[in-house]
Amino acid sequence: MKLTILGSSSALPTSERYPSAHVLNAHERLFLIDCGEGTQMQLRKNRIRFGKINHIFISHLHGDHVFGLYGLLSTFSLMGRENPVHLYAPENYRHILNSHLNDFDIHLSYEIDFIPLSGKDHVQILDDKYITVTSFPLEHRVPAFGFLFREKKSERNVIKECISKYQIPPVRIPAIKKGEDFITPDGVIIKNEDITLPPQEPLSYAYCSDTKYFKRLASFVKGVSLLYHEATFDKSKEELARVTGHSTTLEAARTALDADAGTLLIGHFSARYRDISFLVEEARTIFPQTFPAIDGKSFKVGDINNP
Amino acid sequence: MKLTILGSSSALPTSERYPSAHVLNAHERLFLIDCGEGTQMQLRKNRIRFGKINHIFISHLHGDHVFGLYGLLSTFSLMGRENPVHLYAPENYRHILNSHLNDFDIHLSYEIDFIPLSGKDHVQILDDKYITVTSFPLEHRVPAFGFLFREKKSERNVIKECISKYQIPPVRIPAIKKGEDFITPDGVIIKNEDITLPPQEPLSYAYCSDTKYFKRLASFVKGVSLLYHEATFDKSKEELARVTGHSTTLEAARTALDADAGTLLIGHFSARYRDISFLVEEARTIFPQTFPAIDGKSFKVGDINNP
Repeated sequence: MKLTILGSSSALPTSERYPSAHVLNAHERLFLIDCGEGTQMQLRKNRIRFGKINHIFISHLHGDHVFGLYGLLSTFSLMGRENPVHLYAPENYRHILNSHLNDFDIHLSYEIDFIPLSGKDHVQILDDKYITVTSFPLEHRVPAFGFLFREKKSERNVIKECISKYQIPPVRIPAIKKGEDFITPDGVIIKNEDITLPPQEPLSYAYCSDTKYFKRLASFVKGVSLLYHEATFDKSKEELARVTGHSTTLEAARTALDADAGTLLIGHFSARYRDISFLVEEARTIFPQTFPAIDGKSFKVGDINNP
Repeated sequence: MKLTILGSSSALPTSERYPSAHVLNAHERLFLIDCGEGTQMQLRKNRIRFGKINHIFISHLHGDHVFGLYGLLSTFSLMGRENPVHLYAPENYRHILNSHLNDFDIHLSYEIDFIPLSGKDHVQILDDKYITVTSFPLEHRVPAFGFLFREKKSERNVIKECISKYQIPPVRIPAIKKGEDFITPDGVIIKNEDITLPPQEPLSYAYCSDTKYFKRLASFVKGVSLLYHEATFDKSKEELARVTGHSTTLEAARTALDADAGTLLIGHFSARYRDISFLVEEARTIFPQTFPAIDGKSFKVGDINNP
């Protein structure tokens, strides 16, 4: 899984930082998470193929997380898209989007499959061959949701040399991959662990923005490989963070620590910070494996030393 | 007057070209003309001060000319703006904008003064100390309007040396600037042209996008110093231009020629063209003083050799 940051600013974009948007590439499926203004231009700049985006997740209905969607949906249509777009967003966006399409007399070339977000706990919203996606509630000024993308446990890998050594017929391979032993025509039992290697540990990525700090959040993202958590403010602005429904660097780090996350990525930086390196340093005092979200930068999920 | 191009693409932005937006600086008043997605980021990149924009002109209600407005209006508010925004747009945008503000529960910190565009001829929509702005109809798939920004004729300049030479009292200066002669205490008439210099010729800038070619357009922008005219397509795509309500390079040039424009700026280029230099060459076969709109580039209105 590879994550690309398209925007790392909070509500006020700067000349360096666009509003929120992430693209997660999981087994060549592209998941767009939030869609701030300019997302389609950022996709172009990062040479990300529009046609591979089939699922779009909107965390909440503040402009800096969704104002790029009108343009992107129109562009999809101008490009002649036929595949449906699966759009996960707070319920009232269904009406807003329909009004918009109506007002501008836009007839999309494809269907939008709208999946409303809701619930006070984990809700599974997507289940495909390789991954599952769940939403969970955040605490912000409006209903807001985080997303957890989790690879499914893959099957065991059969060791090539063993196939010829024991003359394993192809028809037996699927069962062996699932963990069964192999029994030779002579009735000899070859133990599964002797002819297979364990699969890679499933990786996971969580997106938490926008939210103020709350203790339960860590339990929603327990054990996540890569945690993206907003850190709009530095540690001195705890009160401002609370009032505006945002987090400080230390709060993001505390959640990462409590969640036992592999790596923490902070972003959604207030426009007041030109240089964000001190924000990273603050977070590292609590959670050393912290890195900053930077527009255009990609991160390999699960590779802690090279996030 | 100085024009800055923020976006030169047509409906599909590219990694180099943003959707339509121009900023005209006329005597330190900033006029924003169209507001495609990403306009606020382009303003930042070009270090244009948000607070100096008091008038926004929307040519028509296609996304690539207006989808950046929601973000910009929100940003104005986040920055604590108090001055009203004068917004000139097709009538039905009033309802669209109100619904939007309502749907997202946005309470702006300032007033929007909405001025609907209409009419089949020139309509004066703004008249301030230094300039007038008129709108005029274009021919597109939806109601669309062009804009003509025209400096007012300034007063004559009194020659400094003459003031002391003829001992002209300050109280007489305003009348002399307006063209009156000066009469000395002895009754000698000093002719106005002997003590003043003529003012600079008033400059003008016209914005014509989106539109198909129509003969009358040239009369709307007759004698304009700098004409911006869309040239979405190359000369071979005349039929496509007609059907989609756009212009070719040659059609833009023909209008510039018929209008006796000083300089022609072409833009709104289709995403199919990576290199646009051949489009400029095509237009120059009819109108040699043609230049391309390029994102981030500024043009001095009236300076033909250095547009």
